This record gives sequence, structure tokens and C-alpha cells, in this order.
Amino acid sequence: MTAPHSTPPRYTPLIERLPATVPFVGPETQERARGGPFAARLGANENVFGPSPRAIEAMQRAAHDVWMYGDPENYDLRRALAAHHRIAPQNIVIGEGIDGLLGCLARMLIDPGAPVVTSHGAYPTFNFHVEGHGGTLHKVAYVDDREDPAALLAKARETGARMIYIANPDNPMGSWHDAASIAAMIADVPDGTLLVLDEAYLELAPQGTAPPLDTADPRVIRLRTFSKAYGLAGARIGYAIGEAGLVRSFDKIRNHFGVSRISQAGALAALGDQAHLADVCAKASGARDELARIARANGLAALPSAANFVTIDCGRDGRFARAVLDALIARDIFVRMPFVTPQDRCIRVSCGRPADMAAFATALPKALAAARS
Amino acid sequence: MTAPHSTPPRYTPLIERLPATVPFVGPETQERARGGPFAARLGANENVFGPSPRAIEAMQRAAHDVWMYGDPENYDLRRALAAHHRIAPQNIVIGEGIDGLLGCLARMLIDPGAPVVTSHGAYPTFNFHVEGHGGTLHKVAYVDDREDPAALLAKARETGARMIYIANPDNPMGSWHDAASIAAMIADVPDGTLLVLDEAYLELAPQGTAPPLDTADPRVIRLRTFSKAYGLAGARIGYAIGEAGLVRSFDKIRNHFGVSRISQAGALAALGDQAHLADVCAKASGARDELARIARANGLAALPSAANFVTIDCGRDGRFARAVLDALIARDIFVRMPFVTPQDRCIRVSCGRPADMAAFATALPKALAAARS
Repeated sequence: MTAPHSTPPRYTPLIERLPATVPFVGPETQERARGGPFAARLGANENVFGPSPRAIEAMQRAAHDVWMYGDPENYDLRRALAAHHRIAPQNIVIGEGIDGLLGCLARMLIDPGAPVVTSHGAYPTFNFHVEGHGGTLHKVAYVDDREDPAALLAKARETGARMIYIANPDNPMGSWHDAASIAAMIADVPDGTLLVLDEAYLELAPQGTAPPLDTADPRVIRLRTFSKAYGLAGARIGYAIGEAGLVRSFDKIRNHFGVSRISQAGALAALGDQAHLADVCAKASGARDELARIARANGLAALPSAANFVTIDCGRDGRFARAVLDALIARDIFVRMPFVTPQDRCIRVSCGRPADMAAFATALPKALAAARS
Repeated sequence: MTAPHSTPPRYTPLIERLPATVPFVGPETQERARGGPFAARLGANENVFGPSPRAIEAMQRAAHDVWMYGDPENYDLRRALAAHHRIAPQNIVIGEGIDGLLGCLARMLIDPGAPVVTSHGAYPTFNFHVEGHGGTLHKVAYVDDREDPAALLAKARETGARMIYIANPDNPMGSWHDAASIAAMIADVPDGTLLVLDEAYLELAPQGTAPPLDTADPRVIRLRTFSKAYGLAGARIGYAIGEAGLVRSFDKIRNHFGVSRISQAGALAALGDQAHLADVCAKASGARDELARIARANGLAALPSAANFVTIDCGRDGRFARAVLDALIARDIFVRMPFVTPQDRCIRVSCGRPADMAAFATALPKALAAARS
């Protein structure tokens, strides 16, 4: 059947030159390569405590209705989120996780050569989408393991950036800025620049981390997810809050039927169980303390964290931290680490149940010894 | 909080000029506007017979694991599909339904002004994605309510098209070409053109509708879905089969974690229950016969169909068919119709259970009378 004279499709020049890189290798890929499962899954900042039982039940009920497409307007969920946040539904767009929404945003604002500002070592999937649309990334350094609003703003002014990315709380460092600092940053966003404020971990952060929502302000879009504190990572559902014109623009390009019907039902039920959310946040707080204790017991410093993970300074360079990470993985503990110097002196460990924490506590001293030898 | 001097984000010129259109209005939107539910949901070619009970159970089990991200490589499902089709996993890419895959394809091959060929009145979501990337659509007419391979190929040669779209079986007409005709079309695809062969309804078609898979051929990509015969529309999961280089290119841009973990589990179980699939196909066949009978009993002609719907020629022009459609909707029957003349002389009715068919049989004569008056 093969036609010997056929030629490949004509990709766009941009696609031709993109690498076939993947932002993250999944733990399943690592398990297949290792030939066995991890004992503790603490690398992807998933919510090991799980979602609300009401969300699980809602998804199980929705499975019976899965022959129907999901509502492309995500009407019920948007209304519930609007009530929850005391904003209007037209200021909310639902997407296939924050990653899906970042992809749409990049497509809306970035054409080849468009300048975009982020931090060295910040969320790589944002970079994947920006570069995937031909944007030019300009990066500023973290300062004291935090993203630096002043430097981000200065770089945006210098380059005429279309977007600035900041995560608050930050991943992979767990650091955060208070609401006043972020509000001041928003007020200082240059005309024609959009601040992409990734608040994936916000529910886990201290009160006073997020400034009030101002849906009249076109300079900022705020990204939230059901993947972290709500425990629905596998359901792939997140949302953005922004000015109505910006939100409406997603309709020009988004995959309208792209969010699973089951996921919509799960997110709606998860949102309705704020008591469970509070319980998860309390458990994550306990696990953060436990991770800090384990780090100290091994002579290491745990960075303060406002998220469901703790970044542990291994006290030497990136090569050493990588050796610790590899030694943990060899001991069946799935963890990850920052990609970029100087943050890569650290490993990043997700909050887990007592058994997960105990497994990490057992493995860490051995991994450190292995890395030091 | 609002900054009076702030300006909107700077969209790309392409995004600025795109309309905020939506390819399809969902039935839920119509129900909200009507103030009540439809009695029969026969407009979106959903599988009213439902998925395999094993798929439902698998999704219900997977709901417990939804705190974990889904495998971004979709490894298990790709392996199972590869075994099912006797091809290699590297020739399969999973996406958020065929719609999601079409979006990636358009992004890979289309830059502003790139020519693309399709038929007047063919799948509008393909057009949505092509125009969303700035492509220029060139359309040829249906002939005898079928897409016309010779005209599509001629137009592709004339325009230097990057892609040709054809659906086999076709939506919205239900018509189809036999495998030999499609194989001849593939053999005649111009160099540098990709044939996008949408086989969403293939499992419901007669044997001999699809030519053998030839994964060495870079001139064609074949799109399949779990939304139709497998009954998982709400799970948003489909796949493409193509040459390995083309399949690998999706990794450059796709939302790697975009397919729900629950949907992956459901699709895997659905694929494993071929007996249920056969049962669905038999029921759809019976419903097609029943829809044809109802049409004849009302003096109308049902077009032959190889899909899970029947397109009924209302015997007059588009205005009349629209009146019939509106009258059906007013009688709580959700149906749709082709958008473009001359196909818009028809309405399109999905296969349903006996109760759905009976509701349609009751409503149709009244709707015809209303439309005629």
C-alpha cells in the first residue's frame, strides 16, 4: 500500500523548528522504565489526600451519562464558581486544566517573535506554550527563591512584553508574595501587557496571599485549578478569571466540547464541599511541618511553603541535589526538582499521608548517604 | 481597584479578526433557553444506547484515583489500540476527541493564508480550527449528498492545499464511499497535501467502508473517536492513526496531560468490549430502519446512512426544513440539520431507543403540519 513517492505534510516553519520536547515526564513513564511502581508518589504535587467523596460520587453518577457530550458552556460550574467568588459567570472560562488555558492564552497573544517575560526556572509548561507559538522568552532571576515582581515588570517594560508570568504561590519553590505585593504588581503592569497570575496552589496558601478579584481590570488574568487542593488532577479541569472581553476571546479558539462531562460534575461537587477542602489544607499543613522536620533531622533546610509541597535545600549544587533525587527514585520515592540554577540545589517533595511521609523519612538519609559517597 | 487607564491585552492580528462564533450550540443551552429539558435527545449524534457497562465501571473505579494526573503518554490505551488495529503504538496519538486532534493538526499545518480544501456543508469544527489558524478554506460541492473525492483532489491540486478534509461516513448526510474509492483517493493525494480522513462513524458503517491502515503513508491521517459507537462522547477522547513522524509531531504542541485519567480508563474498557460495540451497531441499524420507516410514513425520503443518524429529506427548501426542525424542537425533540444548500433541505435525526423513536414518530407529523401551515 505504501506510495514510494509520497512526501511528508508541509508543517508551518514554526512547527518545523520546534523540538519534540515534553514539559514533564509522567511518573508512569518512569515506572515503566524502572519495571515497578513507586512506593510514594510525591513528585507531581498531586493531592495524595484525594478529592471530596462527594466529588467521587458525582463523577461516578456522571459516568452513567457519559454518552452525552458535556455542556460546552460549562454553565453550571461557571455559575457555581461565580457565586463562590462573588463575580459574574462571564468573567470565568473553564479549560482542560491551567495547562489548557495557558495554551489558549499563548495562542491569543503570541505570534512569532512576540516578547514574553517569566522567571528562570518558573513553570515550564508556560514556556512550552509560548515557544510553541513562536514567542521570545525573556527571563529574570529568582531573588531569595521567590519570583521578583519588580524585575519582571522592569523586563516587561524593557521588552514590550505581551505577557508576564508569575505564580503565587510559586512552583517549584513554594514561596509566595502577600496580597499587597501582588496588588501593587498588577497596578504597575505596563499598558498592553497581560499579567498571567497562576494561582494553582492558592487554596493551600495563608489568608492574605491573593488580592481581591477585580474583574474590570484587563491587565491580569488569574488561573485556578481543581488539580491541586481540590484533588482532581486526573480530571483535567481548571479555570481562569478575567475581564469579560478577555474571557470571551477564549471562545474564538477553545475546544468548546473539550472538558469532560464527568470532570464538570466532579468539579461542581468538589467546589460544594468546602469542609473537605479545609480538611485537605489542614492535612497539607501538617505534612509540610513533617517534611520540614524530616529535612532538619537530616541536616537540611526546608524552604517555607504556601503550597502542597516542600522544597528542600540539599545544601550543595545542582549535581548533588540530582544525585539525592536519583537515589530517592532508586528507593521507590517519586520526587522532582527545580530545573535551573540556583534553585536546582533543592529537591521538591509533595505533601503526603503519614505513610508517604514515613517512606520519605526512611529513604532520605540513605539517599543522602548515597549521594555523598 | 479598577485602573481607569488600563488597556486590553494585545491580541494577535489573527485573533483580533476572528469572530466569537461557536461551531455548535449545545442542547443544554437550548434547554436553558426553552426553560425545560428535551424529551428525546437526537440532535448531536450521541450514542443513546450508551457505552459498555464495563467502561462505566472502569470510569467509576478510576474516579477513586483521580487525584493522580493521567498518563500523558496514554500508554495503555495506545498499546491496546495498536493491538486492536494491528499497528504500532507510535502510529497512534490520543487527544481530547477528534475536535482536539483537528485543532492540533490545523496548528501544525496552517499558517495565515494556507489553502485548505473541504466540502460546502462538511464538519464545521474543522473549519473553525482552520480559520482559527488563519487558513483559507476552499470548498467544493457535495454530489448526490456525498462528498466528492475527485472534486476535492482537483481543488487541492489547483490551490496547493495543505490539507483536504473528508469524512467517511459523512456527517451530516450519513453517506459514504467504499474502501476502494477512499484508497484510490489516498493514492491520488498531491505531494505535500495531507488527507484528513475523519472516520468518527466508521464502526457503525458496513464492512468495506474503510481501506486497510497503511501507517507508512504520510499522505493520510485517520481520525477515530470513542464518542460515537463506543458511547463516550462526554469523556472527550479520540485518536488519530498516521505515519510515525506525523504522530510524533503532535508531541511538539499538544496539551500532554490534557486527556482525563477517567476517560483513558473508560476508553480502554470500551475497546475491550467488542461484543457491546456489536450490540450498539445492531441497535443503531434497527433505529436507522425505524427512522426510514417513520420518514416514509410521513411522505418523506430518508437518505441511506452508514452512521448512527438518518438524514431526512423534507422535500422542499432550507426554509421549510428549518420550520420542521423548529416545530420538532417546540415539541421537545432535539434534532439538528445541515447548514448549507442543498443539504439544508434535510433534517438530521440520531438513532435512539424505541421510546426516542416513538417520540419522534409522534412529533414528526405534527411538526410537518405546523411547518406547512
